[in-house]
Amino acid sequence: MPYFDNAATSFPKPEEVYREVEKYLRVYGANPGRSGHKMALQAGRVIFETRELLAKLFHIDDPMQVIFTSNATAALNLAIKGYLKRGDHVLLTSMEHNSVIRPIKALENMGVEHTIVTCAKDGALNPEDMEKALKSNSKMIISTHASNVTGTLMPVQEIGTISQKNHLAFLLDASQTAGVYDLDVNAMNIDMMAFPGHKSLLGPQGTGGLYIRKGLELCEMIQGGTGSKSDRIVQPEMMPDRYESGTLNTPGIAGLGAGIKFILRQGMDEIRHHESDLTNYLLEKLAEIKKVDVYGPMNTLKQAPVVSLNIRGMDSSEVAYELDSKYDIAVRPGLHCAPLAHETIGTLEQGTVRFSIGYFNTKENVDQAVNALYSICRG
Amino acid sequence: MPYFDNAATSFPKPEEVYREVEKYLRVYGANPGRSGHKMALQAGRVIFETRELLAKLFHIDDPMQVIFTSNATAALNLAIKGYLKRGDHVLLTSMEHNSVIRPIKALENMGVEHTIVTCAKDGALNPEDMEKALKSNSKMIISTHASNVTGTLMPVQEIGTISQKNHLAFLLDASQTAGVYDLDVNAMNIDMMAFPGHKSLLGPQGTGGLYIRKGLELCEMIQGGTGSKSDRIVQPEMMPDRYESGTLNTPGIAGLGAGIKFILRQGMDEIRHHESDLTNYLLEKLAEIKKVDVYGPMNTLKQAPVVSLNIRGMDSSEVAYELDSKYDIAVRPGLHCAPLAHETIGTLEQGTVRFSIGYFNTKENVDQAVNALYSICRG
Repeated sequence: MPYFDNAATSFPKPEEVYREVEKYLRVYGANPGRSGHKMALQAGRVIFETRELLAKLFHIDDPMQVIFTSNATAALNLAIKGYLKRGDHVLLTSMEHNSVIRPIKALENMGVEHTIVTCAKDGALNPEDMEKALKSNSKMIISTHASNVTGTLMPVQEIGTISQKNHLAFLLDASQTAGVYDLDVNAMNIDMMAFPGHKSLLGPQGTGGLYIRKGLELCEMIQGGTGSKSDRIVQPEMMPDRYESGTLNTPGIAGLGAGIKFILRQGMDEIRHHESDLTNYLLEKLAEIKKVDVYGPMNTLKQAPVVSLNIRGMDSSEVAYELDSKYDIAVRPGLHCAPLAHETIGTLEQGTVRFSIGYFNTKENVDQAVNALYSICRG
Repeated sequence: MPYFDNAATSFPKPEEVYREVEKYLRVYGANPGRSGHKMALQAGRVIFETRELLAKLFHIDDPMQVIFTSNATAALNLAIKGYLKRGDHVLLTSMEHNSVIRPIKALENMGVEHTIVTCAKDGALNPEDMEKALKSNSKMIISTHASNVTGTLMPVQEIGTISQKNHLAFLLDASQTAGVYDLDVNAMNIDMMAFPGHKSLLGPQGTGGLYIRKGLELCEMIQGGTGSKSDRIVQPEMMPDRYESGTLNTPGIAGLGAGIKFILRQGMDEIRHHESDLTNYLLEKLAEIKKVDVYGPMNTLKQAPVVSLNIRGMDSSEVAYELDSKYDIAVRPGLHCAPLAHETIGTLEQGTVRFSIGYFNTKENVDQAVNALYSICRG
């Protein structure tokens, strides 16, 4: 089955990810950071190793500034609600996912203001528009690195500069790019960065995390057992324990570590070039199909490997259903949990058919998809 | 290695749990509830099947009232913070884990009052003490089903009755009992019940959940993509989506389903009797070692399979270290993230050495442990 739903979760994972999850479950198996026996220590080492690998990948000085969450949504919620206070103002782009917009809407009722900066029809953000929307009580800028609808890459460097110049916290949602695009939290002035473990980082579902710049204090959302300062009935303030209450998804984190090792071995550039080449090829082929409308930049220099399209006169769900049932091709139709992005690109009514490409996709997969689209267009 | 740390996480898991996690990762792999292609639908079915199995196990009428969380701590935080409001009063026992006490302490700053009802030295709660502590603004009672330090079983039925009579919400922390003790949310008047997936339910780490009685509305802690009502920028109110934003730990939930099927096949009574018999045997043997102090009821009718002890004159960490390094026996020393419980039983200084028994422990394991303790006592 050609799988083009990598923006939801990557599939397949590298063989070593499966093996590492199984090894963890069968061999180490214990609870890290609690008991101190051999198995628990081994589990703790697995966690720490993955933290180190993430720090290496994102150029983070201290691995303890990376905390594990169950997914990027949990990380974004923690960053947003842990940082913003009543009376604050926050800026975000109109291409954000509901995992940013819904928490921001929830904070509205608690006196946190926001401005949604509208992007162009291809999803591009003009950094000047962001700067113009600043207010005296602005405290934070939130941007996705790449839209999950159109793949549009955001001007992260420019946003980082604006944010630094104006003493704001910059929260990057790296859901569609972590593992494929180079992310350097210092060079890009990123203060917090949320990432899923199960997309381009190639780990299992149930993993994700948040980088928090040293010195930045968030109000933790969850308190509980941390295995540290067990004599205290208030949450400890040390990193990363403060934000990691309860038993972590250790088998998942073990698998995530294996995914990152795979990335480092293959080389992120090689992975990105492969995905980008296939995206280019898909875009070229799509341009030849008359009834197909493609959204976004249609240019892999400006776009992560995500392509949204529609067949004129057909509902996106109908197209996806045919791709799945007749051609065994997995894509995602609809609104992709990003209604404002669809408003921006003009597809709030019908949604889009989204092809999201991963490292294990092949040119043959793209050919199969294009041929299937031709057939569907012919009806 | 005799593994006696099952109260932290059960080990090993049944063979079918390993296999189901691997099968999910290798074969279904997709994101449930989002895309609608075959793999995504299969993933959705896995999630729903586990929800149904949990509903069956806990006598819950509608599986949609079970929501998945990353662990019991996240479930407890959601139940506590989602339900209690400024001006409310909540009652809890002195045997609660920090996953209850720390959120309650955090709410104190937000104007939520609490009373900690002190238990007896063996951890037992007198339900009358709970009733006496009620106030006109009391809104909730929280109790663990069994202490994670002493195993002491709490009078759940009586607490349920008090709670119903006084129109309070009853939140049960079933961390140490779900999967071993019969839990009937209706018969026991339980309004919310938090459970880990990776302890006696025999699933992988990274799983847990919360039962929420129908009609009970919690303020959700996390907003984000739910795959439902994607056109809306506010969180949908439908169950279980409202409380399950972001990608779930689907491989973990698949494994959890396999764990529950194992329990249903073996029979929960058979599992409980096995664990209880071993606990009894351990308690009998411990009573013969002069230098060993055992805490808790020392009676398996009143105690889940958790035994805390100390060797007089030795620190609990020292004993655990010897058990691990010389005898390859895994236990947990220290305060077990429950400082008030240790205050209650008088071990706040030295902690305890905790033996927690699981279904895969054997009589030989107990003999090994007892022999090791004899040797350590002899120095």
